[in-house]
Amino acid sequence: MEQKTYGGIELGGTKTICAVADANGVILSQTTIPTTSVDETFGAVFEFFEQGLPIISLGVGSFGPVQLNPDSSEYGYIYNSPKPGWSKVNVKGLLEDRLKLNVAIDTDVNCAALGEQFYGVAKNANNFIYLTLGTGIGGSLVSNAKLVHGILNLEMGHMRIPHEQFMTTFEGACIFHKDCLEGIASGYAMAQRYGKNAEEIVDDEAWDIEAGYIASALNNLMMITGPELIVVGGGLTDHAGLMAAIRTKVQQNVNNYMNFPDLENYIVQSSSKLNGVLGAIKLTSLTN
Amino acid sequence: MEQKTYGGIELGGTKTICAVADANGVILSQTTIPTTSVDETFGAVFEFFEQGLPIISLGVGSFGPVQLNPDSSEYGYIYNSPKPGWSKVNVKGLLEDRLKLNVAIDTDVNCAALGEQFYGVAKNANNFIYLTLGTGIGGSLVSNAKLVHGILNLEMGHMRIPHEQFMTTFEGACIFHKDCLEGIASGYAMAQRYGKNAEEIVDDEAWDIEAGYIASALNNLMMITGPELIVVGGGLTDHAGLMAAIRTKVQQNVNNYMNFPDLENYIVQSSSKLNGVLGAIKLTSLTN
Repeated sequence: MEQKTYGGIELGGTKTICAVADANGVILSQTTIPTTSVDETFGAVFEFFEQGLPIISLGVGSFGPVQLNPDSSEYGYIYNSPKPGWSKVNVKGLLEDRLKLNVAIDTDVNCAALGEQFYGVAKNANNFIYLTLGTGIGGSLVSNAKLVHGILNLEMGHMRIPHEQFMTTFEGACIFHKDCLEGIASGYAMAQRYGKNAEEIVDDEAWDIEAGYIASALNNLMMITGPELIVVGGGLTDHAGLMAAIRTKVQQNVNNYMNFPDLENYIVQSSSKLNGVLGAIKLTSLTN
Repeated sequence: MEQKTYGGIELGGTKTICAVADANGVILSQTTIPTTSVDETFGAVFEFFEQGLPIISLGVGSFGPVQLNPDSSEYGYIYNSPKPGWSKVNVKGLLEDRLKLNVAIDTDVNCAALGEQFYGVAKNANNFIYLTLGTGIGGSLVSNAKLVHGILNLEMGHMRIPHEQFMTTFEGACIFHKDCLEGIASGYAMAQRYGKNAEEIVDDEAWDIEAGYIASALNNLMMITGPELIVVGGGLTDHAGLMAAIRTKVQQNVNNYMNFPDLENYIVQSSSKLNGVLGAIKLTSLTN
């Protein structure tokens, strides 16, 4: 019996991962390309899938905001992206027209959550949060083992938390809300505030403030959705000590109001940067 | 064919509502009693059900925190209540032992959400939030038409929001977190801050601050769970103009980041103070 193989794309704001895997999530081939212009990026994506292993369908996790309402005439489009040239791009349509196969689409964050649920640290978790800390901040909610799709995409990065004592002269970097979570705690916000990219920031106080913001956000996610697990992914989690500092501050925030299980196993770092593309593959193999 | 009738109790921190209804939620008899000592309160509850219409089962929505894990030896207990004498009270057991019937139990807030879902303003909503603004603040999340039960009860009242600009000398009234949402915006917090009960507060600025806190909380609930509807209940919503002020401030908070439907039909006041006890009845008629 021939093995069925599926394609997946994690279309990120900075880089794009393409992969082919079997129905068990075993990756057979993969490539990572920079996300530049629409033409150049899709050119490289087409090349990977046209010259590579045959696939029977394709799943995409896309940066956004993505229109996910199947009844919309813009279903599968990126709309209003702050990334130049990417607003109103028909991601699903471009791929289907060229590759002649079914394309399933969801947000990059939701695909990462799916990847964690089926192949990562959230295996067996029916109710969990996936939060990504990267250039932006986004989150997914899985309830009763299913992704929650809100009336629009969930926008956890735009929640508001207390912060004034740490703001000094930095007003926040969100173009819509200034000092929402993403406006003060994303990689982009850190770069605006400290004048260098997050991975170059070595100041302990900066990371202590960062851990405090994220802990406040996790506190809200815990109180509002009562997850059995919180998975944190994204580039900022590469900073040594950030996860541990977040856990310490969550413990302080909760202040014994709830008796949580061991926080080490409750607030957990994503196990692999490939879980996003694996989730995109899962998205399509679930339906094909 | 004889009609099946069910009993429901909304056991609140201040008052308790008992009712008997048919499977369609038509209330056949009801009473409201003050929640005083355990003995006195349950005495009145027993009297209502023993001397009233026959019921085949009973549902309870209880103030809490309530232990809802069926595997716990304290399933159906109130634990750690700040209400004197009510910690470690076996609500489910007391009722079952005396009334000799099955008792289903959930939190008062979850029962109110059920009531809204089946008989109130959330009919036909599959994904919604119910938030109650009373002596305390609590909330429920319904996803894919089902109540979300977290690893512990959801504790939306203990989320944190920005607030410093309005705090002045009031530090917040939550015994665990001082200035979480409940610590600054509950009826109890207002009483602590202004020295009188909420219903006696006429100062416009106080209510403007209150609307701002609640709007911040709703903003977070919207961003985190993407509900198709938000229902707000509880005594504070009786204050004229509060709901409208909340909507105006939510619109300002969101700042066009999302295109919401008409807020008048999106952030909606609970239709009836009886939805809590109707939800408790629904809880039992769903399973009996």
